[in-house]
Amino acid sequence: MHAMVLKAFGGPDNLQPAEIDRPEPRAGEVLVRVHACSLNPVDMRIRTGLPIGPALPAVLGADLAGAVEAVAEGVTGFAPGDEVYGCAGGVRGLGGSFADYIAADARLLALKPRNLSMREAAALPLVSITAANCMSRAAVGASDHVLVHAGCGGVGHVAVQLAKARGARVAATVSSPEKAEIARTLGADDVILYGSESVADYVRRLTGGRGFDVVVDTVGGENLDRSFQAAAAGGRVAATAARSTHDLSPLHAKALSLHVVFMLIPLLENVGREDHGRIMREVAALAEAGKLRPLIDAARFTLGQLPDAFRLLESGKASGKVVVDLIRG
Amino acid sequence: MHAMVLKAFGGPDNLQPAEIDRPEPRAGEVLVRVHACSLNPVDMRIRTGLPIGPALPAVLGADLAGAVEAVAEGVTGFAPGDEVYGCAGGVRGLGGSFADYIAADARLLALKPRNLSMREAAALPLVSITAANCMSRAAVGASDHVLVHAGCGGVGHVAVQLAKARGARVAATVSSPEKAEIARTLGADDVILYGSESVADYVRRLTGGRGFDVVVDTVGGENLDRSFQAAAAGGRVAATAARSTHDLSPLHAKALSLHVVFMLIPLLENVGREDHGRIMREVAALAEAGKLRPLIDAARFTLGQLPDAFRLLESGKASGKVVVDLIRG
Repeated sequence: MHAMVLKAFGGPDNLQPAEIDRPEPRAGEVLVRVHACSLNPVDMRIRTGLPIGPALPAVLGADLAGAVEAVAEGVTGFAPGDEVYGCAGGVRGLGGSFADYIAADARLLALKPRNLSMREAAALPLVSITAANCMSRAAVGASDHVLVHAGCGGVGHVAVQLAKARGARVAATVSSPEKAEIARTLGADDVILYGSESVADYVRRLTGGRGFDVVVDTVGGENLDRSFQAAAAGGRVAATAARSTHDLSPLHAKALSLHVVFMLIPLLENVGREDHGRIMREVAALAEAGKLRPLIDAARFTLGQLPDAFRLLESGKASGKVVVDLIRG
Repeated sequence: MHAMVLKAFGGPDNLQPAEIDRPEPRAGEVLVRVHACSLNPVDMRIRTGLPIGPALPAVLGADLAGAVEAVAEGVTGFAPGDEVYGCAGGVRGLGGSFADYIAADARLLALKPRNLSMREAAALPLVSITAANCMSRAAVGASDHVLVHAGCGGVGHVAVQLAKARGARVAATVSSPEKAEIARTLGADDVILYGSESVADYVRRLTGGRGFDVVVDTVGGENLDRSFQAAAAGGRVAATAARSTHDLSPLHAKALSLHVVFMLIPLLENVGREDHGRIMREVAALAEAGKLRPLIDAARFTLGQLPDAFRLLESGKASGKVVVDLIRG
């Protein structure tokens, strides 16, 4: 089969086309013909050497949508021909989706939303599971006022929609008036141009100074301090990037809860993978109910153009998820 | 009435005896004849100038047990003669318990546990509410393996008992073999002499290297890093002292939740005070069921000896809570 293979950690061009053996699904696995895959920042970090990646040479790639080609023993709920999606590879011990086929743990997959294309479905898994983890860990409910940073970002754009689906009032920070418009179409009740309004100002404008019940922070670094500042007393901050050092005094003064979300743990540690399949089913139901749709950059890439796809991702100029089509839908 | 009055922030001897007017209970308040009060570290910090204290001159003191003398309008559930306890003063806007009488918000009080003396009951409120907040915020349940740091400390000794009452398996860190024995009598299943066993060692010995589902940290500072280290993947850390700066990478790697508990917020902000009364009722029920008892230092103090009581607290040599008896029980 065709695959993009990484032989040495480094830049996008280290991903090289190769013909390799089709993987054999083991017990509990499904062989999936990959129709589309999407790129996530973690793929880039693994490509450059983050030590959670597979041993080299390796096929990277976490997100996929495709058709079941075969199922191994112990798999229930999937049959050849089923259209599926999931975040099922790209880290140590697992195959990757930057290839014609992947042998994927069935617990990580679900039937693709019927109303989404393969391309659209492939955009959702990693960011949707991350956003869903933020929602459940922070127990977002209908009475909550939620702030989503980077509301047009990968995780952010799903978090806005999931928070709305839970009935919350949602504000989103964005970088430009164009993205403000996109955030509104995703359902954001209020939009904040973070470059032109201070935290104190938008907390006053949108919450009367009280702060947000929940803040979803996918940005990290100094932005996490801004999230602590924006939270109400007793509030919850869900953070997907928290490898930095912070003064926790604001957490103390307001008795905050900080929930750090790292969605790859079930893939890395082989614990709780059933949760990912369940979330993928819930996401499919929301998509089919018209409550969730992916933001996807308009650029199209074939598998061989994967380095170009990474360059777009790394430019920061993509408008939505970057998707690669293995079979042009 | 007799009271110990603080006219200037400073050491224990700045608390001076004085005759002042008995407070008048306002709507929603109960006038309580204080039989016993207990000291907490926050009283010391307020005495030395922590800016959450009352305007000077002031009567400090949060914890009390006593008898209802009178109830003002709007108070239901209490009548003169009722024996009550609670954490009801010592911060801005409130009276204090270092006096013969306090006018206390009825929402902060509950009927004293019938099987505890005034002296015992007065030891419980602030530490019990703090420990109960740790339990509820971290959602401690019967399947959890809980580590309580400073298991013989003020909050710690209640946390050990509350976690046991929820069915959890509980390990406690202590400073000495004598305190290890006390922690076992409180119900700790395992005891750790923190001076002679590393975090990695006791995590290996007690959890097989997996880590604890919940860590209760009342120590703060560098100990909070040890709590992050001791937590299992997906674990929860409840911290009552988190005014310091920390590398959050361990939270990220294990997707931890950090719940910072600051029990004075309802007193300071006048929000959620009903929760405190509810917790006091739950604590009374646990005490009456034989599931919770306070650790109290054997030293006895009259109100006039309050400076000596503070000196014992501040020496770090008290064995349990430091209590002052206004009426010798």
